[in-house]
Amino acid sequence: MDRVKVTKLSGFPEYLPAERIVEQHFLDVIRETFELHGFTSLETRAVEPVDRLLGKGGDADKEIYGVTRLADAPGERSSREPELGLHFDLTVPFARFVLENAGRLAFPYRRYQIQKVWRGERPQEGRYREFTQADIDVVDVGELAPHFEAEMPLVVAEVFRRLPIGRMTIQVNNRKIPEGFYRGIGIEDVAGTLRIVDKLDKIGPEKVKALLVEAGRTEEQADQCLALAGIRTEDLSFVDRVRALGVEHPVLDEGLDALAAVIRAGLDTAPGALVADLRIARGLDYYTGTVYETQLEGHESWGSFCSGGRYDALASDGKTTYPGVGISIGVSRLLGLLLSKGLVTASRSTPAAVLVAVVEEESRGESAAVAAALRARGIPCEVAPSAAKFGKQIRYADRRGIPFVWFPGSGDVEHQVKDIRSGEQVDADPAAWTPKTEDLTPLVAAAAPSP
Amino acid sequence: MDRVKVTKLSGFPEYLPAERIVEQHFLDVIRETFELHGFTSLETRAVEPVDRLLGKGGDADKEIYGVTRLADAPGERSSREPELGLHFDLTVPFARFVLENAGRLAFPYRRYQIQKVWRGERPQEGRYREFTQADIDVVDVGELAPHFEAEMPLVVAEVFRRLPIGRMTIQVNNRKIPEGFYRGIGIEDVAGTLRIVDKLDKIGPEKVKALLVEAGRTEEQADQCLALAGIRTEDLSFVDRVRALGVEHPVLDEGLDALAAVIRAGLDTAPGALVADLRIARGLDYYTGTVYETQLEGHESWGSFCSGGRYDALASDGKTTYPGVGISIGVSRLLGLLLSKGLVTASRSTPAAVLVAVVEEESRGESAAVAAALRARGIPCEVAPSAAKFGKQIRYADRRGIPFVWFPGSGDVEHQVKDIRSGEQVDADPAAWTPKTEDLTPLVAAAAPSP
Repeated sequence: MDRVKVTKLSGFPEYLPAERIVEQHFLDVIRETFELHGFTSLETRAVEPVDRLLGKGGDADKEIYGVTRLADAPGERSSREPELGLHFDLTVPFARFVLENAGRLAFPYRRYQIQKVWRGERPQEGRYREFTQADIDVVDVGELAPHFEAEMPLVVAEVFRRLPIGRMTIQVNNRKIPEGFYRGIGIEDVAGTLRIVDKLDKIGPEKVKALLVEAGRTEEQADQCLALAGIRTEDLSFVDRVRALGVEHPVLDEGLDALAAVIRAGLDTAPGALVADLRIARGLDYYTGTVYETQLEGHESWGSFCSGGRYDALASDGKTTYPGVGISIGVSRLLGLLLSKGLVTASRSTPAAVLVAVVEEESRGESAAVAAALRARGIPCEVAPSAAKFGKQIRYADRRGIPFVWFPGSGDVEHQVKDIRSGEQVDADPAAWTPKTEDLTPLVAAAAPSP
Repeated sequence: MDRVKVTKLSGFPEYLPAERIVEQHFLDVIRETFELHGFTSLETRAVEPVDRLLGKGGDADKEIYGVTRLADAPGERSSREPELGLHFDLTVPFARFVLENAGRLAFPYRRYQIQKVWRGERPQEGRYREFTQADIDVVDVGELAPHFEAEMPLVVAEVFRRLPIGRMTIQVNNRKIPEGFYRGIGIEDVAGTLRIVDKLDKIGPEKVKALLVEAGRTEEQADQCLALAGIRTEDLSFVDRVRALGVEHPVLDEGLDALAAVIRAGLDTAPGALVADLRIARGLDYYTGTVYETQLEGHESWGSFCSGGRYDALASDGKTTYPGVGISIGVSRLLGLLLSKGLVTASRSTPAAVLVAVVEEESRGESAAVAAALRARGIPCEVAPSAAKFGKQIRYADRRGIPFVWFPGSGDVEHQVKDIRSGEQVDADPAAWTPKTEDLTPLVAAAAPSP
């Protein structure tokens, strides 16, 4: 039934079985950690009204996929229904869900959301058009306690510690620091200045300075902006370093206090996980307090794998405002890079720990009974697809990385199980034998990079 | 930033936290059972070329959602890229994935796939436009061993046994039985006859007989067709009952043997789970052997929650043919009905088992340390959002169904933990206290129907 030409679609990654096991492990660790921290799961529909997707400030550059029933001829679409598009992040649908269900949710509402999102990018190397994000947010009614801004990066720091990856550094800033600082040195155009300073990583300090002067800042202002952006400390010393620049402004004080609280919480709970980095700007248009970015140590050029921040108005229905703070892990981008560089591997390409051999097709039922006994004790297994020679059945297991092959006994013949890696073969009871914990499920581990 | 009107979209269900916990439990049980049986996970992209979606036989009635970049003006779409649509099932993408990756997969390939699918139905009560399916399939190259046709329904029978639902009955038939039987009584138009007999549940035997005669069958042929469709047995006696109808045909013999093998495997492994039901027809156009449907006992009018069958050509590239057998659980439809009837509930609306109270905002760090100690031992918890009066903190836990509130000690004051259901409060050590297993994670259980 399926003779249509097979077409690879650029930007829509799909994983083979062993890679998918790596992805599942990552998603399981993320979910488990979020749940340990009391976040509740949310899954929103894939589509939102296009109005809502376009309505979000500063996202004109996000490419939206529109969704229409093929059966509708152009112009025939029911006018009672809004035009729909696929969501391009998880924040827009979350905000809509909060407004729609505010009366039925308990606030502060802690939710996590792990889902695919879509961006209608033009096909291009390394650009995903479908990818998985894993977000946590806390949203409250009217006011949001500042301690949540310290909590978010510590939850993801725990996620990263539990994953088989290198050291992740979460860089934290507070938007009020540059804002107060800029105002303190007489800069009115805070957003425009930030936008230029944000190019620091890409174009370097000289060009940033030139652009600032071109945009009307004085030489002295530009130097001060660069001095501020250059401050990065693992402890609270960033406060003194900012003070040493001699700038005074109440908004700057607020920002320094808030960032110090976040860094202090990090030093208490996860020393080394957070860094105060005053060049981090992010999403100028809606973040209003703490902002986060995250880099994998030794792979800074890969950019940020996890970012977010605080918004004073995550959502608003005109009467009530819902401030929030959230952080989002770019799961697909992280996995795509780790897998393509061979930095993480799975020990096998199937959940099965055991292949139960079949002696002859007539005794398949006996092999199935062994498998049922193993499964009843939580041991994943499958029964060999055919009563081929044992050598062939062992090769079937070997090709998939299944570590054990079970040879069913009968009458006087004992059951035996063979570890096909070592060749060791021992008598075994289907009601009692258990593999070592590390062989029960596929092991996902960091690997040396491929040459 | 979010003042656009909030719009409910008919057919796109979304769950509140407690309902989502029920859904997660169902999905976890399904995944765990599939993995115990050695199925590997596959996730395919959400979109396929429209050609491929339309190409599948017999699916002209499936409504497809087309996907286009909003940024592309009509007609501007890059001609190098195929027109895309959202998948409406998991079989079409699976078949395409097999063809695309045949050289990198090990056959027989056992995969499970739990994903959203979309159908562009017109908005209508009870019709989902986005819903979750959970499929298993086994596909092989050239030939597929018949024992897989017995395995599929036994795997889903185990899923249903592990779920907090009533008894599911999996009805099994083999397409060769009606085919051989019809040919044996001189009927040439097998497909046309099946299509009419398939209406039995909806319009009853008299009307089916009238339609058959109208379509050119004799009275005697129509009676024989109805006699065959009326046979339903939990054991192997269906074979004798078919034989008693006195019809002979080699294809009928093949079908009876194959169905007997499936029912026999069911009697061995899961007595009562399978029923031979000779009226089951399903997907006339591609199923070629065993077919399955599943009903919840006492709720037969809700229709089938799980169906599938064998195809001789799941996929083909013109040179190689890939026969397969699969079965698909309609997770959203099942959950939607159970939740709307109040037949299943979660014990709480958050993963958190413990709320760690905060004595005063300055000691939040001490509460966070208690939470970290509990989490290190796998106990999900959250820290109270504010240092409100303890009564208010307890109400916060109560509203979410969190069973325990922890009161941090300090100095001479012991830590204490309160079970807010019983009111019992005891001294406790953050490094040692553990809740009962049934309180550790939310309990999802069958409930009496709401009045």
